[in-house]
Amino acid sequence: MENTFWIWYPGDFELYHAMKQNFSRVERGFGWPAFWKSEGFRNRVALRRVYELEQETSFTVFSNAVGHVLVTWENGEKKYPFGKKITAGPGKVRISIHAGCVEAFPCAYVQGEVIHSDKTWTAEDYSQPAVPVGVCKYFTKPEQNPTVWEYTEKECRPVKITEVNGGVLAEFETELTAAVYVNDKRKETGDNQERCITAEENNAGKNDAGNAECGLEVYCGESEDEALDLEHCYYSWQPDPVTKRCPCCAVRFAFIPDCKAEDVEITAFYQYVDFPKRASFKSNDEKLNKIWDVAEHTFRLCSGIFFLDGVKRDKWIWSGDAYQSFFVNQYLLADPDIDQRTLLALRGNDPMTRHINTIMDYSLFWILGVLYHYEVYGDLEFVRQVYPKMCSLMEFCEEQLDENGFLVGRENDWIYIDWADMDKTGALCAEQMLFAACWQAMAKVSDALGEKNPEYTEKYEKLISQIRKFYWDQEKGAFIDSFESGKRNVTRHANIFAILFHIATAEEQEKILENVIKNDAIPAITTPYFNFFELDMLCQTGNLEFVLNKMRSYWGGMLERGAVTFWEEFDPKAPVEEQYDMYGDRFGKSLCHAWAASPIYFLAKYFMGLKFTAVGGKAFELEPHTEFFDSFDCTLPVADGQVHLTWDGKDLKVETNAEGGVLKVNGECRKLETSL
Amino acid sequence: MENTFWIWYPGDFELYHAMKQNFSRVERGFGWPAFWKSEGFRNRVALRRVYELEQETSFTVFSNAVGHVLVTWENGEKKYPFGKKITAGPGKVRISIHAGCVEAFPCAYVQGEVIHSDKTWTAEDYSQPAVPVGVCKYFTKPEQNPTVWEYTEKECRPVKITEVNGGVLAEFETELTAAVYVNDKRKETGDNQERCITAEENNAGKNDAGNAECGLEVYCGESEDEALDLEHCYYSWQPDPVTKRCPCCAVRFAFIPDCKAEDVEITAFYQYVDFPKRASFKSNDEKLNKIWDVAEHTFRLCSGIFFLDGVKRDKWIWSGDAYQSFFVNQYLLADPDIDQRTLLALRGNDPMTRHINTIMDYSLFWILGVLYHYEVYGDLEFVRQVYPKMCSLMEFCEEQLDENGFLVGRENDWIYIDWADMDKTGALCAEQMLFAACWQAMAKVSDALGEKNPEYTEKYEKLISQIRKFYWDQEKGAFIDSFESGKRNVTRHANIFAILFHIATAEEQEKILENVIKNDAIPAITTPYFNFFELDMLCQTGNLEFVLNKMRSYWGGMLERGAVTFWEEFDPKAPVEEQYDMYGDRFGKSLCHAWAASPIYFLAKYFMGLKFTAVGGKAFELEPHTEFFDSFDCTLPVADGQVHLTWDGKDLKVETNAEGGVLKVNGECRKLETSL
Repeated sequence: MENTFWIWYPGDFELYHAMKQNFSRVERGFGWPAFWKSEGFRNRVALRRVYELEQETSFTVFSNAVGHVLVTWENGEKKYPFGKKITAGPGKVRISIHAGCVEAFPCAYVQGEVIHSDKTWTAEDYSQPAVPVGVCKYFTKPEQNPTVWEYTEKECRPVKITEVNGGVLAEFETELTAAVYVNDKRKETGDNQERCITAEENNAGKNDAGNAECGLEVYCGESEDEALDLEHCYYSWQPDPVTKRCPCCAVRFAFIPDCKAEDVEITAFYQYVDFPKRASFKSNDEKLNKIWDVAEHTFRLCSGIFFLDGVKRDKWIWSGDAYQSFFVNQYLLADPDIDQRTLLALRGNDPMTRHINTIMDYSLFWILGVLYHYEVYGDLEFVRQVYPKMCSLMEFCEEQLDENGFLVGRENDWIYIDWADMDKTGALCAEQMLFAACWQAMAKVSDALGEKNPEYTEKYEKLISQIRKFYWDQEKGAFIDSFESGKRNVTRHANIFAILFHIATAEEQEKILENVIKNDAIPAITTPYFNFFELDMLCQTGNLEFVLNKMRSYWGGMLERGAVTFWEEFDPKAPVEEQYDMYGDRFGKSLCHAWAASPIYFLAKYFMGLKFTAVGGKAFELEPHTEFFDSFDCTLPVADGQVHLTWDGKDLKVETNAEGGVLKVNGECRKLETSL
Repeated sequence: MENTFWIWYPGDFELYHAMKQNFSRVERGFGWPAFWKSEGFRNRVALRRVYELEQETSFTVFSNAVGHVLVTWENGEKKYPFGKKITAGPGKVRISIHAGCVEAFPCAYVQGEVIHSDKTWTAEDYSQPAVPVGVCKYFTKPEQNPTVWEYTEKECRPVKITEVNGGVLAEFETELTAAVYVNDKRKETGDNQERCITAEENNAGKNDAGNAECGLEVYCGESEDEALDLEHCYYSWQPDPVTKRCPCCAVRFAFIPDCKAEDVEITAFYQYVDFPKRASFKSNDEKLNKIWDVAEHTFRLCSGIFFLDGVKRDKWIWSGDAYQSFFVNQYLLADPDIDQRTLLALRGNDPMTRHINTIMDYSLFWILGVLYHYEVYGDLEFVRQVYPKMCSLMEFCEEQLDENGFLVGRENDWIYIDWADMDKTGALCAEQMLFAACWQAMAKVSDALGEKNPEYTEKYEKLISQIRKFYWDQEKGAFIDSFESGKRNVTRHANIFAILFHIATAEEQEKILENVIKNDAIPAITTPYFNFFELDMLCQTGNLEFVLNKMRSYWGGMLERGAVTFWEEFDPKAPVEEQYDMYGDRFGKSLCHAWAASPIYFLAKYFMGLKFTAVGGKAFELEPHTEFFDSFDCTLPVADGQVHLTWDGKDLKVETNAEGGVLKVNGECRKLETSL
C-alpha cells in the first residue's frame, strides 16, 4: 500500500541505525565504535489512533516486537495477537498497539483498507506525552523489516586483474562501498567443506577466535599501495564460505596473496542508497568537469542512511561534517530525508548531558543545521519535531557560560573548530560566533513556528556586543582567538565566521579581508573542512576567481595524484610516498571524505549563481557567471523541479519547471517562466 | 578463575534482564509487555583499570560487543582485538576496553594471571563520570554469556497421566516453571518432517503467522480446570519440532487434546534459580508446617533473576510486591543479590520521569526497600551505588508537592495503596505516611554513608506534623483517607501505616487499634498484599494469637482448596467454581503469587522471635514463643550463619554459628555462644 508505512516512536529508527553505523568502523582486525555517548532507541512503546468507522472494517498488525493490539470501543475492549486479521467497527474505535522489543526499536505495520499505519498515528513511550510517529519513505511494505536497511546493489566487475607479489590484484573502476566476492576455483575440485570463520563472525570486534587458515584472505584498499601492504592495509577478510562475499567495505583495489589469476573469480557488489540524479555539470573546462564528477561520486559514497565523514574511516556521523554535507546536498541530491535522519541521529535523546560527538562547536553546528535544513526545504513539520531538542541543547549550553556570558568547555569537552594552531585559552572567539549564530537561528526557527521569543534576539545582540568588546582588536583590525591569555593571537577561523555569519560590520569586514584573509603572514587553512568556510566566505565577498583557481589547483591537484574520490586532507607539497599518511598511520588518510565534495556547492551556488531567496526554494535567483566559461550545460535541483542552464559563449539559455525564479544578467532581473 | 568476573556498566545487566522479564508475559497467544517506561542498558561503554606491573604479563579480553582493547603505557599506546592474547608491562599500564553493542549491554571478561576483570575496574558511558563496574556472582567464566541467564534445570516427571476429554492430562507433583517436553510417538513411525512453527516463534507476540496444524498442542494450566479449558487456558504451545519442548511457563497440569496416553511421552524441565536452602520449619502443627512449605515453594518459584509478582501472571517486577519479598527473603533465602538486582531493575536510569511501575506509592516503597536491604545485609557498597538514585527519586517527588507539602499524583500517575474502596480525593494520607517514612530512610541511609543531611530529618518532622494536622481526626480517633473531600472516610490502610512506620503516638496507636483495626465496621483488608502490612502491625502490637489463627484460616483455607502454591487473592466465601476468577477472567487469578508467602516472615520473626538488632545481622535477639507450640524444629539464616531452635514442649535448645546473638526467655536475656 502506497499510503501505508511502518511506524515507530519518532527518532528511534535513526538512533538505532546510527548506532549500527557508528559501531561499524573496523581497523586491521578490531572494531572501533564511536567514542561518544551512544543512545538507545525506546524498548516499549504504544502506537495509537482513533477511528470513526462508518462500517465494519478489518486490518492486520505486523510487528518486530512482542505485544498485542488493543481495540477499544464504546462498551468494551479486546486484545488480539499480531499477524491475525482483526475486525472492528462501526463506530468510534481506538486502536492501541502495545509493543516491546529488547534488541531493536519496536515498530509496527497496520495493513487495512481503512485502518492502516501512517503519520496520523501517535506514539507513547510511557515517559513523555504522545507525539506523532516516525516513518521512513523506504519502509512501506508489510514484509519489510525496518531494523534492516535495504541498500541498492549493483555488480561492478574489476576493470583490471594483475598478478603481483605472488598474488592477484583486482582494480575496480573507482572506489566503491562493496562486498567483494571471491570464488576460489581451486576449491571446486576438492570437497573443501571445513568450517571457516565466516565473514560475519570475522567482522572485527567480535571475539577474534582465530583467523583459521582455511581459506584465502582478501585485502581491500582505497589505494593500490594499501591493498598490497599486508601489514598496514585496513581491511582484510576471509569471504563467507557460503556466500563467498566479504563484508561490505570501502574498496578500489582488492589483493589476494598466494594465488594465480586463474585460481579466482573476483567481483564486487556495490551497496549504496540510490538517490535519484538531480544535478549535472559540464563545461568547456575538463578539469572542472572532472572535479564535479569526482566530488559527486565522493559525496554519494558518503551519503548512506546518514551523512558520513568518510567510507573507510571513520564511517561515523559527525555533526560538523554533516553540516557541510547539507550545503552540497541542497545542490546535488536535494534530498531532505537524509538531512532529517542525520539530524535526528546526531542529537539523541533528552536530557542532553554531553556535546554532540563530544565537540562543543559540533553541538552548535547542529542548531545551524536545523535552520539550514528548514530554509532549504521549508520542512516545518520536522522543525516542530526537533524544536524542543533545539531548546534543550541551547539550555545545556547556557549552563556553561562564564562571567562574561561566553560559552566555555566543560571537563572532557572537545573544543575543536579546526586542526590548526590556535590560542585556545579560555573562551574561544570562534565558539562565541557560532553560539551567537545559534541564537539567531533560534529566533528564526521559533518565528517560523509562530512563537514569540524575543529573548533569542536579545541574547544574540548581547552576545555580539560582548564578542566585539572582548575579541575585536582595533590595532590588529581583526578578531583575536582568545582574550584571556593576553596573546592577542589572530587566526583566520574566527574572522571567517565573523564574515560568514554577518557578525562583522562592513568596515570590520574590509579590515579582516585585508589584515587576515589576504595576509600571507596569517597561517593558511590546511583542512578541506575549514577550506569550505573560507571559500564560501570568499565567494560571498566576490572573490570568485580566487576560488576557481583554488578548485583547479587544490582539487585538481588530487586528480593529478590519481584520486577517484576526494580526500580527507591534501597537501600538494607532500611527497607521493607519504600522500596517504595521516595521524602517523601509513594509510590513515580517508581517500573518500564528504567534506571534500564542496566544489559542487561552490560551482552551483556561486558560478552557476543559483541562490534561494525564500524558504523551501519557493523563490530563487539565477545569476550565472558566464565570464568564467566558454560554455557550460548544467542542471540543478530547485524545490520539486530543476533549472537547466546552457551557455555556448554567446547565448545563455535557462529552462525551469519551478515557479519563483528570477534570472539576473548584467544587473538586470527577469522573471523565469516555467518551460520544462 | 574464581576471582574473575564478567564486568559491565553497573545496572546494565539488571536493566537488560528486567526488560526481557517484563516483556515475557504471554496470555492466550499474545504478548503483554509491561505497561511502563522500560529503559535501556547502555550501548557504548569503556571499561578501564590501571595496573602497576612488576613484570611483563599477558591477558586476553573476551566480549559480546564490537570494539578493541587499548593498552596505554608511558610512551605509547596500542589497540588489540578481542579474543587474542595481549602482553603488557612492566611498568604502569592502563587497560581500556572499548565496547559497543546495539542489541544487548556490552560486557567483557579479562582473563589473566595479574590483569583480570573484577570489581576494581571502572566503567564509563561517555555521559557520566566513571563508576565501579557491575558484576554478578553467577558469571565468572570466559565461555559464559551474561546476556543469557543460566537457570538450573531439573526434570520433573508427571505424577499422574489420565485420559480425559479425548486427550491426555499430565499432572505434576506441584506447580513448576517448566518447559514441558512432549514426544509424539506417532511421528516416530512416519517421516513427519514438515516445517512447523517453533515454540520460540510461537512464543506469542511475534507475528502469529498461522498456527499451522502440523503438530500437537499443549495446554498448560496452574489448575486442572485451566488446562482442560481450551478456550480460556492462558498458555497453549506447540512443542519445538527439534527439542520437543514448549517454552518455559507456569504449569501444574498439561493437557494434550486428541491423543491417547500411549501416543505421547510427557515430562517437564523445571527451570529455576537454585538458591541454597537456609531455613526450615517443622512443628507439631501439621497445617502450619504445610503453610511454611507451600509458602517456601511459592516464594522460590517467584524468585528468579528478580522478585516477580507471580509466575503465570504478570511475571513482572513490581516494586510494592518486591518490597514484601525483601522481608521473606531475609528469613528464607537470605540472598542479598536478588534484592540488589530487583532494586536496580526497578529504578532504571536517571533522570526519573515517571513513577516506578507508574505507581506513586511503589516509588516510595523502592526507597524503603533500599533501607531495608541495607539494614538486613549491611550492604554499604550497594547503598553508595544507588544513593544518587534515591536522591533523584526524592527530588522527583518533591516536584509534585501541593501547597501543604503533600505528595500528590501527576496526570497518569497511579495512586494505588491497595485494591480497596478508599476516598482518594486529593492528597492521600497513606501516601504521605510512606513519603514521611522515606525521609526517615534517607536520613538513615545518608547517615550510614557518613553524610550530614539534617534536612532529611527536618523534612520528616515537618511532614509528620502536617499529616497529624490534616489527617488525624480527633473525633474518630483515627487517620482519615483524605481531607480535601470533607468525607472524613476511615479505612485501615493509613492507620496500619501509622503504626508500622511509628507515626502514631502511643495514645493514637491505642485509639487506632480500638477504632479501626478491631472495629468490624471498618471494611476488612481483602488482599494478601495489604494483609502483610496489617498482620505485621498486629504482630508488632502483640496480637500473635490473632495472626496465628489468621494464618491457619486464610492460608490454611487455600490448602483446603487444594492449593500447592499460595494465591494472588483468596476469598474463603467464593464458590469453588469461581475460585480461579479474577479481573473478570475465568483463570485470571495468579495461583502462585509472591505476596502470599508472608507466613514465613511472620513465623520466623514473630513466632520463632528472631529479630535483628544491628545492621547486617551483626546482633540479633531470639525470643521464641514456645507457648504456641507443643514442639518445633526450626533453622533460620543469620548473617553468614544460622540459628537452629528446637522445642520439645519442655526444653528449648538453641544453637548458632553466628556471633551477636541474645536469647530472651521469660524476659531474661542470655548471650548465645556459637556452637555449630
